[in-house]
Amino acid sequence: MSASPAKPTYGDLTTQGASTNIAWHHTSVDRAARAGQRGHRSAILWFTGLSGSGKSTLANAVNAALFEKGLACYVLDGDNIRHGLCKDLGFSDADREENIRRIGEVSKLFLDAGVVVLTAFVSPFKADRDRARALVDGGDFIEIHCAADLAVCEERDTKGLYAKARAGEIKEFTGISSPYEAPEAPELRVDTGNQTLEQSVEQVLVYLSAQGIIAQAN
Amino acid sequence: MSASPAKPTYGDLTTQGASTNIAWHHTSVDRAARAGQRGHRSAILWFTGLSGSGKSTLANAVNAALFEKGLACYVLDGDNIRHGLCKDLGFSDADREENIRRIGEVSKLFLDAGVVVLTAFVSPFKADRDRARALVDGGDFIEIHCAADLAVCEERDTKGLYAKARAGEIKEFTGISSPYEAPEAPELRVDTGNQTLEQSVEQVLVYLSAQGIIAQAN
Repeated sequence: MSASPAKPTYGDLTTQGASTNIAWHHTSVDRAARAGQRGHRSAILWFTGLSGSGKSTLANAVNAALFEKGLACYVLDGDNIRHGLCKDLGFSDADREENIRRIGEVSKLFLDAGVVVLTAFVSPFKADRDRARALVDGGDFIEIHCAADLAVCEERDTKGLYAKARAGEIKEFTGISSPYEAPEAPELRVDTGNQTLEQSVEQVLVYLSAQGIIAQAN
Repeated sequence: MSASPAKPTYGDLTTQGASTNIAWHHTSVDRAARAGQRGHRSAILWFTGLSGSGKSTLANAVNAALFEKGLACYVLDGDNIRHGLCKDLGFSDADREENIRRIGEVSKLFLDAGVVVLTAFVSPFKADRDRARALVDGGDFIEIHCAADLAVCEERDTKGLYAKARAGEIKEFTGISSPYEAPEAPELRVDTGNQTLEQSVEQVLVYLSAQGIIAQAN
């Protein structure tokens, strides 16, 4: 409340007179500070698998379990990405690659923000997944292969996409007319073709517990 | 632990036997649930202004203040966007528009994740800012004009960009060779050319308090 304010000090944080003990003296809040405040570290849980393999269902169920444990967590999937950030992209090879690139970059932002981010995309190509992995430090990228067999996924065909792909109405459909490159050494392989959802959630939680991301599995 | 698991129930959450009271029975965690858990609603604080107007400094200082109050918050700025998500974009009109579009979409994701997200980009064009605003509900987008005069910004020239723009080394530099369309009715106009950083932070916090995003201004 002095009569004339001092010259603004943007770019540094020098303050005037006695008012040095101010609440906002840290200009940057880093990931370690966020982990300290929230009580858990962040990570990217990258679910990959065929259409119908249960990626989104499992990611959302794990997310709900983490939320109920009080963790900051968020799911990126087709619903909130393909109609938003990536709505300018189609399904050509170049567009699929760019789609996964952007999802990797956004995941990195959530990681930095202290959030456990769960991505649920087919992400069929190893090179694309590896590029996403390379954006962050080792241990921050947890690849989870939802390993239901093609026959199981096609029988489920929850969205009717396999029927359309078989009829030639959808071109370059993963598993039918475009390859799925299964992860060779994912952090976690979940048998979503034979296990119940409950079993699969439990398997992921046990892994996250072992990694110290959650305090206990139950 | 039954001998043969029941048919997987992916896509719905029916469980077996008595184990219905399980922790992950909610498949989707929505924004309201996140706000309830964290004790605050989320918002997009969209800082706009000339290069050197103090956007990033103010956004980071506000972010630090929010963090110290226990809010989930995160800054998007050139440091984490231009070298990541938008590294494929240049400074043509189309690329600038796409840059702001992506930042708007990513902000919407953070909003949905329950995080107060602070964006610090020149964002000189009204149409681009209005498109970002239109992605979310009224009240969720808080436009904050860092209204330092061009003369002040150019005198500061913290990054030496104005000198280069005047020398013709940078083309289409906002304020020099490309227009800055000042917001006509931003939620908040901050006189970052004449106020101290402390005063500007306080002004933003008072506004967020009035909006019920933080409980009190100090």
